[in-house]
Formats: sequence, C-alpha cells, structure tokens
Amino acid sequence: MGQESRHYDGAMARWEPGARDRLVVAAVDLFTEQGYDATTVAEIAERAGVTKSTFFRHFPDKRELLVAGQDMLGRLLAEGIAEAPEGAGPLAAVAAGLERASSAMGPANRELGARLKAAIAASEELQERDALKSVSLAAAMTSALTARGVPDPTAHLAAEMGVLAFKRGYAVWSEGDRAEDDGLAPYALAALDELRAASASLG
Amino acid sequence: MGQESRHYDGAMARWEPGARDRLVVAAVDLFTEQGYDATTVAEIAERAGVTKSTFFRHFPDKRELLVAGQDMLGRLLAEGIAEAPEGAGPLAAVAAGLERASSAMGPANRELGARLKAAIAASEELQERDALKSVSLAAAMTSALTARGVPDPTAHLAAEMGVLAFKRGYAVWSEGDRAEDDGLAPYALAALDELRAASASLG
Repeated sequence: MGQESRHYDGAMARWEPGARDRLVVAAVDLFTEQGYDATTVAEIAERAGVTKSTFFRHFPDKRELLVAGQDMLGRLLAEGIAEAPEGAGPLAAVAAGLERASSAMGPANRELGARLKAAIAASEELQERDALKSVSLAAAMTSALTARGVPDPTAHLAAEMGVLAFKRGYAVWSEGDRAEDDGLAPYALAALDELRAASASLG
Repeated sequence: MGQESRHYDGAMARWEPGARDRLVVAAVDLFTEQGYDATTVAEIAERAGVTKSTFFRHFPDKRELLVAGQDMLGRLLAEGIAEAPEGAGPLAAVAAGLERASSAMGPANRELGARLKAAIAASEELQERDALKSVSLAAAMTSALTARGVPDPTAHLAAEMGVLAFKRGYAVWSEGDRAEDDGLAPYALAALDELRAASASLG
C-alpha cells in the first residue's frame, strides 16, 4: 500500500494517519498466511508497525477488523436512498445508495479485495461474519426504502438486489486493472443494471 | 411437543426416535431462558432426557444444533429445482425446490419458529450462523439453477428470491394457527408469488 489513505479513517485519521488501513492489510495477510484462529492481535499490530493499544483504538477485536466499515456502508447506502429524488423508483433509489456508498471505497479497499476473498474462503467464522454483513446492509437498505413508502416485499427485494450488486460490483472492481483510477460506483451500477435486466427473465 | 416426529430424523430415528427433536426444543428453550453462551451441552441433554453422547450422535456442538437440517434443506431445494419440468422458467423451478424442501418441515418445525426467532434475536453469534444458513441455501439453489442452464445473474437473483420466500413463508406459517394441519408449501409459494409481483414494480 505505502500511501496514506483518506478512506475509512474518519476521525481516527487525525491522530494516526494510515494506521487503520495498515492494520487491515496486516491482519488479512496474516489470516491468509497462518489462518484466522492462529493470528493474534499482537501479531497484527506488530506487522502493521503500531502498538496493541492503537489496534484497540480502531477495533474491538480481530474479527470486527474484517468488517471495518460495515456500519458506515449501511449508513451511506441508507442516506443515498433517502436523498434520491422524490419520483425515483425503488431500484433508482438503490442506485443512489450504491453511488453514495461507493464514494467511501478508495484504492486501499480495491487492493484488499483478493486478500479478503482468500481469508474468508479459509475460515467458516469469517464466512459467518461476512454473511451477517450482507444481512445488515440489506436491512439498512430495506428500512430506507420503506421510509420512502416502498411497500413490502418490494423493499426487501430491491434491497437484496442492492446487496448483490454491491458485492458483484466490488468483486469485478477489485479484480480489475488497478492502474485505472476509476471508482467502485460504475461497477456497482452496472451490476445493478444486469440484475434489473435479469428480473425481466425470471419466468 | 410430546409426539414422535417423522421429520429431520432420517437414519437417526432408527435408534432413538424423537431424541433429535427433543434436543432442538430443549436447546432453543434454554438459549432463550438463560442465553446461548451460558447454556451447556450437558444441560441441553438433561432437559431433553438423553445422555450427552446421544447429543453428540446428533450434533457436533450446540451451535450446529440450531441449523439442524440446513444441509438437508439445501439438498432438497436443489433436487426440486433439478427435477422441475424442462420448460420451467427460473422462478417455476425455484417453486419446485420450495415445494420439495417444504415437505421436510413438519409440526415440530412449525412449533419451533417463535422459539428460534427469540433465540436468534438474543445472540449475535446465532445471527451470524443464521445469516450463513441463508447464504448456503442461496448457493445451493444458484448451483441447481445454473445446472439447468439459467444464466448468471438471473440464477443468483432467482435463488435469492427463493431464500426470501422460504424465510417469509416459514415466518407466516409458524406464526399462524397451528390447529390447521397445513404444510409449509402453500406459505412459501405464496411468498414467492408476492416477490414475483414485486419484481414487476422495481422501477
């Protein structure tokens, strides 16, 4: 990585710029090298070049580290949906949410994609945490759609499509050519368009 | 419960009919009464009136007990999809999967609904396990749809709708009037029909 990131740090960045990103990268590398269970907070802090107490200023434990940003993503998805134009349909509102959330995903997040995938594939505990993350993002979007007056189960379905689009878009983006300086948004929106088209051929 | 169940037992039933259902009910009650973390395998076995070794013949640990039947459900969903008529569209195939899986859900499963909901609401660990269960059922259906030639992402979307329909149908069924001797299938299929209708109003 080697660069200070302006992403995911929020208020934390004021006192230790980049520490949060370095901790995430160190952790995911260690999880992949030696397994999730065998990796300690002390090892993660050492690899990242920070103290254990710096670790605990950013994350309550090693598992939460992997879902860093989940609450923020849920909040941004919901904000984007809430602020979509009044006449926007459910999927147009979801698209606004995806754009808002994508704006928080920078080069460090893109770089992490392949590492994260490997770590999650290797650990059932991380698979569970990742699955709960999807449920949590879907719930955030469902609530925001319901608040716009979208009836159930349309709100649920549109929210699930939003989660699928975010995950598929993120996968393509993080596997893509990193020399190109494009953000996540066009990938997530393209994935949502594909799902919209697919919904017309469900039979 | 008080009745021997013909559900979920499979080969196990040959040597201790009903033990599996009794263990599940005892566990979910204990989880709700005193919390998931505080409940031991010994307490679950005692409440169910069986030995600890009987517990371990049925489940590797207390957490897996809560997702009893997940693999079986995934298999039945996939079988139903695979055996749907050749000309059936993606959602018609999903409906066939829901019918097949519903046939494995009997009165004991219906009775458990409210208890399960309370136990899961009270424990983040159980929420994660439950979220992973949804992911696993969606993956089973996606594979079965892909094997029928349904292209991606239609297969993914139809599978997610199948999971939503199964969960929503199960919720309504288990909250419903238990004197009525109807199975889960009509509830799951009605929920799928609602989602199909919703997919036409996504905007």
